[in-house]
Order: sequence, then C-alpha cells, then structure tokens
Amino acid sequence: MAGDKAVLLISCLDQRGIIARVSNHLYRLDCNIITSDQHTDDQDGHFFWRISFDSQRLPIVDLRTELEGSLDSLLPGLGLKWRLYDAARRDRMVIMVSRLPHCMIDLLSRSHMGELDADIVGIISNHPDLEPLVKPFNVPFTVIAVEKGAKAKAEGELIAKLRELRADTVVLARYMQVLSGRFLGEWGQPIVNIHHSFLPAFAGARPYKQAHDRGVKLIGATAHYVTEELDAGPIIAQATTEVTHRDTVADLTRKGKDIEVAVLAKAARAHLQKRVLLHGNRTVVFD
Amino acid sequence: MAGDKAVLLISCLDQRGIIARVSNHLYRLDCNIITSDQHTDDQDGHFFWRISFDSQRLPIVDLRTELEGSLDSLLPGLGLKWRLYDAARRDRMVIMVSRLPHCMIDLLSRSHMGELDADIVGIISNHPDLEPLVKPFNVPFTVIAVEKGAKAKAEGELIAKLRELRADTVVLARYMQVLSGRFLGEWGQPIVNIHHSFLPAFAGARPYKQAHDRGVKLIGATAHYVTEELDAGPIIAQATTEVTHRDTVADLTRKGKDIEVAVLAKAARAHLQKRVLLHGNRTVVFD
Amino acid sequence: MAGDKAVLLISCLDQRGIIARVSNHLYRLDCNIITSDQHTDDQDGHFFWRISFDSQRLPIVDLRTELEGSLDSLLPGLGLKWRLYDAARRDRMVIMVSRLPHCMIDLLSRSHMGELDADIVGIISNHPDLEPLVKPFNVPFTVIAVEKGAKAKAEGELIAKLRELRADTVVLARYMQVLSGRFLGEWGQPIVNIHHSFLPAFAGARPYKQAHDRGVKLIGATAHYVTEELDAGPIIAQATTEVTHRDTVADLTRKGKDIEVAVLAKAARAHLQKRVLLHGNRTVVFD
Amino acid sequence: MAGDKAVLLISCLDQRGIIARVSNHLYRLDCNIITSDQHTDDQDGHFFWRISFDSQRLPIVDLRTELEGSLDSLLPGLGLKWRLYDAARRDRMVIMVSRLPHCMIDLLSRSHMGELDADIVGIISNHPDLEPLVKPFNVPFTVIAVEKGAKAKAEGELIAKLRELRADTVVLARYMQVLSGRFLGEWGQPIVNIHHSFLPAFAGARPYKQAHDRGVKLIGATAHYVTEELDAGPIIAQATTEVTHRDTVADLTRKGKDIEVAVLAKAARAHLQKRVLLHGNRTVVFD
Repeated sequence: MAGDKAVLLISCLDQRGIIARVSNHLYRLDCNIITSDQHTDDQDGHFFWRISFDSQRLPIVDLRTELEGSLDSLLPGLGLKWRLYDAARRDRMVIMVSRLPHCMIDLLSRSHMGELDADIVGIISNHPDLEPLVKPFNVPFTVIAVEKGAKAKAEGELIAKLRELRADTVVLARYMQVLSGRFLGEWGQPIVNIHHSFLPAFAGARPYKQAHDRGVKLIGATAHYVTEELDAGPIIAQATTEVTHRDTVADLTRKGKDIEVAVLAKAARAHLQKRVLLHGNRTVVFD
Repeated sequence: MAGDKAVLLISCLDQRGIIARVSNHLYRLDCNIITSDQHTDDQDGHFFWRISFDSQRLPIVDLRTELEGSLDSLLPGLGLKWRLYDAARRDRMVIMVSRLPHCMIDLLSRSHMGELDADIVGIISNHPDLEPLVKPFNVPFTVIAVEKGAKAKAEGELIAKLRELRADTVVLARYMQVLSGRFLGEWGQPIVNIHHSFLPAFAGARPYKQAHDRGVKLIGATAHYVTEELDAGPIIAQATTEVTHRDTVADLTRKGKDIEVAVLAKAARAHLQKRVLLHGNRTVVFD
Repeated sequence: MAGDKAVLLISCLDQRGIIARVSNHLYRLDCNIITSDQHTDDQDGHFFWRISFDSQRLPIVDLRTELEGSLDSLLPGLGLKWRLYDAARRDRMVIMVSRLPHCMIDLLSRSHMGELDADIVGIISNHPDLEPLVKPFNVPFTVIAVEKGAKAKAEGELIAKLRELRADTVVLARYMQVLSGRFLGEWGQPIVNIHHSFLPAFAGARPYKQAHDRGVKLIGATAHYVTEELDAGPIIAQATTEVTHRDTVADLTRKGKDIEVAVLAKAARAHLQKRVLLHGNRTVVFD
Repeated sequence: MAGDKAVLLISCLDQRGIIARVSNHLYRLDCNIITSDQHTDDQDGHFFWRISFDSQRLPIVDLRTELEGSLDSLLPGLGLKWRLYDAARRDRMVIMVSRLPHCMIDLLSRSHMGELDADIVGIISNHPDLEPLVKPFNVPFTVIAVEKGAKAKAEGELIAKLRELRADTVVLARYMQVLSGRFLGEWGQPIVNIHHSFLPAFAGARPYKQAHDRGVKLIGATAHYVTEELDAGPIIAQATTEVTHRDTVADLTRKGKDIEVAVLAKAARAHLQKRVLLHGNRTVVFD
C-alpha cells in the first residue's frame, strides 16, 4: 500500500554522508524514496537535494514533527534549510495580469486540462478587460486598480486579497505594474514573473522595441522570481525564438507571446512541483 | 583528502529502501557521494541509479572486490545489475569512419581541446582518404578495406585491430558499412553510431534524399547503439534543424552535418561518462 | 494614396523573363510591388512567385478581370497557375475539433488578440464537450456526431454546414475523425490538419505511445494538408521538442501539446496569408 | 546556354516601380533572374533587393560598365547603393584567431568539404599555438604578435599582410584582440566577428563567467560586423543553447563552443554569398 506522498527539499553545505544519513533515517521511518535529485555546487560547495517519497507509516503532519526534531541534529553545523511538502495538497494559485490575455489563458487552459499541480483560486488584474475570457473557467476575477500616486493603497488591497484567497503561489502573467519592495517583504513568498526578453538584455520597459532597435536575430523570454530590483531576480526558465529583418516590433510582440507562454508555464510548473531551489540569486531547477 | 573517484551504475527492480541501503553501505565504506541521479520507470517499475563518489579509504580495486561480495546480498531478488568504474581511468576510444570527415574531425578537435573523457587511440577506416586530416592529432590511422563479398574477412581484421588497440569504446563517425550480427556478438561491447535522420523516420540508405522527397520541414540526426537490425538500436541522443523548400538534397546534407556532429558528440560524451543505462531497447541518459 | 492591396501567387515552368514581364505589366497597371518572394526548384525547374502589391488605379475585381485576359498570353506554354487575392478580404475560417481543447483555444485566443488574418465563423465538433470554452469568443459551436457506420451521413452534414458558414479555410485542430476521400473531393479546398508526431514517423493512431515505445529523445508535431492517404499529405510546418527517459506517455502527450499548438498556428497563419504553394506532395512556404 | 552568373544588391528608398524598372532593364540586357529576395522596411521605407541572374550576352565586366551608366538614372533621387558580384569569383578569405581552435578548425573543415564559397588564403594569429592544426589544410599561417603598447605596430603589419594576401573577407574566429577604429577605417571592409554571448547581454570580457554569475538558463553566441564600439556592431546571426545549474563556467565554455562554431559558420556563409545588407546598425540577411 502506498502511503502519503511527500517532497523534501534540503539545502546545506556539503559534507560526507548527507545522502546516507538522511536516506537511512527516512528508511527507518518507513519512507520509500521514489525520486532523488541532487546537486552540489562545485564553487561554493553548497548541497541541494530534492526527494519525493511515500511515507508508509506516518501521516505527513506527524512526519513533519518528527523531522523537526531530528533533521537538524542529523546534519549539524551545515546551515541546513529544509522544507517538507505534502504532495497530495495542491497549491492555491493566484494569477495577476494586466491587459494581455495570452499567459493567463494558457495557464487557465492547462489547469482546465488537469496539467497544472495547483488550483487557480483567483485572478487579480489592474484592469477589468479580461474578465469575460475568464468566465468559462469559473475562477473569481478581481479588479484592483492602481491609481497614479496610490500604489501603496493598491498594494494594501492586493495583500488583503491574496490573504483572503489563501494564495500559496502568485504568478504574474504579464502584470505590468512594478511591485514595491515593501509589498514583496510583506507578502514574503516567492512570486513568479514573466519578462518578455532574454534577461539580462532588455530589462525594463518595451523590450521588444529595444530588441528591434538593436537588430537582434533572436528574441527571448525569462521567468524569474520577483525581487526589489526590476528584472534582476533569480532566473527559473528562459527561451528564445528566431526573428528576421522582416519582423516589425509588432511581429516581435506576437512571436514573443509564444515563448512567454511556454517559459512561464514551464517555470510555474517547476515551482509548483517544488523543483526550484534558491541559490543566492541563482536557481537550481531539477528536472 | 579526496580519495579515488568512482562511478557506480545500478539497475534492478524497484523496492523500498534501495537508496538507503546502498548509500548507507557506501557511507560505512567511507565513500562520499558527490552526485546522485536516479530514475524509476513508472510502467515496469525498473530502478536506475548512477552515483559518483570519493572512496576515501579503499582503492577502487578493493572497493570492487568488496561490492562483489556485498551488493547482491544487499539487494537480493531484484535482478540486480551493476558496474563500477574508476573515474580516473580514461576510456580508450576508437573512431571508425568512411570518407566524410566532419564527425571524426569534430571528435578529434574536442579531444585536442581536452573536452572528451577518453583517449582516442586509433582511427579505423575502410578508405585511406582521411588519413592526412588525422596527422596533426597523432592518432594512428588504419585502413581496413571491405572488399565485395569479403565482409567476414574485414570484420575479422576489425576485431583483431580493436583488440590490439585495447578499445573500450567504439564510435562510428559516419562509417558507412553495416556491421554484422556476428561481429557485434563477438565484440560484445556497445558501439555508438550516428544516423543522419530523425529515427525511426528515414532509416537505411540516403536519408536526406528520402527527407527531401517527403518534403519535411525539419531534418534530424540520431545517435544510437548498434544492433543487428539496421538503425533500430537504443537511441541515445537526437536533434533536428529547420529546412525549407529552398534546400536541395545537397543543402540537407550540408545542414545535417552540423546536427550529426552535435548529436554524436553529445552521445559519445554521455557514453564515456557512464551516464547511459540500457532499458530494453530504450536508454536512460542522466544529465 | 495607397490603393487596394492584393496578393498574387504564380507557379509555372521557369523561363527567362517571367519576373520582368509580370512586374512590368503590373507597373503599367499602376500596381506597386510591396513584397516579392520567389523560388525556383533546381530539380524540376518549377517557378514559384508570391507578390503583394498596391493596385493604385484598378479595384481588385477589375484587376482580376484584366489579369484573366492578359496573364496567360504573357506567360504562354508554361502551364501557368495563378491566383489573385484581395488582401482586405479576411478568410472565413472554421475550426474542427474533437475533445482536446488546446489547439482550438489557442486559435481562438490568437483571433481574439487580432493576430489571425481570418474571422473564425464556426467551430464544428463531433462531441459537445468543448462548447462552454468557446462561449467568451462568440463563435457558433455545432455538434455533428459521427455515429458508427454513419460516417457518410455525418460528412454530408459537415459539407452542408461548411457551405452554410461559407468557409474559406478549414483547420482540423485535433479533430480525431478520418475524413473520407469522397468528402475531401466534394469539399475541394485544402484542409489544414495537425498530427501529433514528426511525420513520416509515427503516422496513424497513438503517436505518443509509439514514440515512447521506440525510446525517442525528441517528439514532434506536423501540420499538413489533408489527403486521402492518412498523414501523408504535403507538410506545411513541423517542430520537435526534447523528451527524456523520465517522460511517460502522459508527459509526452502534455509536452507535445505545446508544439502542436505552435505548429498549427504557424501553418494556419502561413495558409491564411497565402504564403503556401503546393509543389506536388511538397510545399513552398514563403516567410 | 547559361551565361555568366552574377549577384546584384540594391538598397535605396522605396518607390513605385523599382522591381519593374530594374527587372525590365535586366531583361533587355538578356539577363535571366534566377532568385529574387526583397525587403522593404515598414518604418523608414528603405528598400533592399538581392537578385542572382545569368547574364546571357554580356560578360560581368561589361555588364558592370553598363549598369554604372544606367542604374542611377533608372532610379534617381532614391539614394541608391548597389553592388554587382561575379558569382564565379570566389572570395579570398583570411581567418584571424588567437589560441582557441574550434571556430578555425570548423571553417577549415567546411572549406575542405567544399561547403564554403571562398578560398581560405591565410590564417593570421597573435600566437603560434595553432599552426600544427592548420598543416593538413595547406593554408599559410602567419604569426603577428601584439606586444603590450605596440598595438599600432601590429595593426600595421596586419593591414600589410591582409593586402599581401589580397583578402576580400576577414573573419575573426575567436581572435581575442580588440581592433582599433584606425585599423577598421584603414582596412575599410566589413569584418565578421564571433562573440561568445547573446548580445547585447554580456558584451566585453569573460561572457561565460558573467552568464554563470547571473544564473541564466541559456547561453548564446553572436556573429556581427566589427565596429569601433566593442561588441556593438550590426548582428548577422545568433543562437542560444540550454544550460542548467549543473553547468560550471567550464561547462558553459565547452557548450558555448558548439554554438559559436554554428553561428560563425552561418554568418560567414551568408556574408560570402552576398546575402547580408547593412541597414544602419542592423542587417538584412536574405535566406
């Protein structure tokens, strides 16, 4: 009989025996490792591990209590960080969007087809335009306008709404407002964003215009975690697509949508499956 | 102090506790796992594991003896197959080629730049044409012609030469002779081949001509292990590249070379680093 | 003042002076060539030309009459085929679909964002499932069930419906019924289909299952014109995406959707913009 | 009878009738257009045209004289620039390189296989290291060292050598010295360079280190014409390839080589076939 399924993320300094000690400990707790992905940074000796397993004896809640009492003493002095996730619990995901529907529609469609490990519990937009498109998906649509000079007020409402929706995961699907450091600090959870360029090139406004002016032969899209510095957060996924001299800024904008959609979906999926670990301003993304 | 480095490949039926038992066993042998890649097939429940580790106490040769005495009893009844490799020992690689130099030159260049985990100890060709190109790389070049109706004789010389060169790895870099089942059986080691199509499409002769006739918009290349059935062996790596109505068969041939080179290099690299495990007629290729 | 915009497609045997004669003729008719794409097949000497131009004097309807009287005598004995399109006239497009929504939703979304050179005037499905998803797009949804042994009857209704909708372009967006040669003959217009493999590999049923069994490292999608022989029609666009040993048939199915969507959109776009010319069982697709 | 083959590049302001007038003029000169590629920039109304044709009556040299006397009056007031190339005349190409052989070897191999529309007439390096690798290709190898504080002297020798070799095309195949504006002005011909990043990201020194530090998920390569401002010249071709958290700077360097080689070969090929037209700091690259 398969028991509760869980995902355990571990990051710490590397040391001989981590895999042995933890896997042995889990074994004694009647947990059977199903997948194991590991990475050690060869420069700073940081160790990253993601395991999924069946807990055949203990429910996740009890296993968490057990690990809280045991993991630190099992791996002492290594600056251990760990998180345990109940694989049966789906994230409550909120999509934030402005006026361009493509990324939002794509995430809603994937959810509708059962391909997203999350429940989309709300859409928040600073514009009412996209509400009709959301209708068939039965997801509540909330407009929180951002008036000039009143960003703080809007961000207050935003936090309140996210809390009301009990959001675990927030994805910015072409939400065109910059979130303040204050907001990010208050929310305190990683937020996934899509930027329509191959960062670090063409950060900021109108990246397709910038790309066209520079005469590049590829355009890109980048999914990253939002940080206070604009478009400078840890990168989760990127893609590029070819363009030619024939492509106008409007063509780049159209072609770019396809990779924005693909990259954001890939990043959201990795994030929701707890396959992304932070490593300073970089990410470890297990397959 | 880092000890001997080794790679251990394990494949068997899945069961609770494999990772725990083996990693614990290695830990007690003072082996420190550096990388760990694992896969369980969700259909047939087969388990695949590749670990690289430092053996801090035992030299590899003694470790091998130890594991021969212990692994089977550690994982009984699971149809266990395992191999231990000394990471310090470089494979002796032989390239077989006919008249087209691109894949051979590429492998020689990579070796020259120190990017191949192997020593290229010989080139064998059924034609003398490419010998001058091999000169700067100081690799012996042997011609073993395959006369009409005398394939068995040629294959006998081939086996003798491979044995004389003490080859570990044989790579067919556009070697245009079909190797007989008899030869493959006698040699007994996996042989990596590059086929210039996206298999299973366009197996056999003149794949670019076939592709052109069908009017495809992509052409491909496939690296696979050679089996008796032509172009039907386990696939290691594949790539495709775009073509258009403008491309003649000669253009496909030229464009295809780039992906042949890339795919063969990728497959050879994975094979040499012991990252490829067989799973029936499919492969597990760890990153 | 810019006049009426038109697209002229020409295909014939190659001969000295075609471009000169036709461009000169258009010049005298006060037509200004805006874009010109030309291809000559180096094997059979076939000539393909697509020009877009402003007709500064004559309305398209009169220009057509003029060309009907002049083009054949301008290019005699070359087996000339030509078509003139009014660029201001948008195609009336019908999407046919079964139960999987991704390609349909994608085309509807693109249309909604103004990126498709067509009006989607109807969706036809053999199942009622997807009707709710179509609602926000205000496109009539028609169910034409295909009962066992009653395909001819269903195809009759289909033809009637397509005629009623005055469809110019029909796109099969994962419509899982095989259309009979009789239907194709009666409809008489090219129909764009998406097949979920890199044709000619894995034609027919369950291509992702076939791909998984063969152990490929890439999966593909192919958009082609429907012909009586299943999955054997002229290819318009193809793409592939990487898969690994970790991917189950369900994963291939999920990953494949992304390229199905991209490839079908690319092919539909090229078709609608009159950039696809037939050349036997192959296509010329101008950028 | 096919006559002399030529390529004509035209760029000017757009106006009604350019194609008609020129193709008609060529027709009267007994020139038969074989391929025709045209582009009009929708922003600034610039017109670009590349035609290849057979000149059935006049030798290229006479045709050039004829066009010198006629083209300007045919297309007056449009800022016309044009160049006529004798397609039978192969460019004399010089490769400049420092210590990394991969791009140089690749170009030599392509030339050896008859795939480059040029004769490689010399290799110039600031280091002697690569000379042995050039041996089998029978291309003279010249060392022009660049001593500290003596760049002007070295550049003087460089110009002299390029003139001595009667170079038409110069390709920097990982030549790690910055060429001065003075040198570029004196040489006066476009020089193709490969930069190992996706420009404009990571211009300047150590781009793979920069990319690793930023944690990107793709690395790139860019071929461009050299201008006085470092890594800022018109882009001819670009490509990217995926990297992961596992890749060290050494891995990026290794993986990047493959796209450097591919991108430089693509750009060199386009340049040699006169398919690249300058448009300010951007390029028009016909297929």
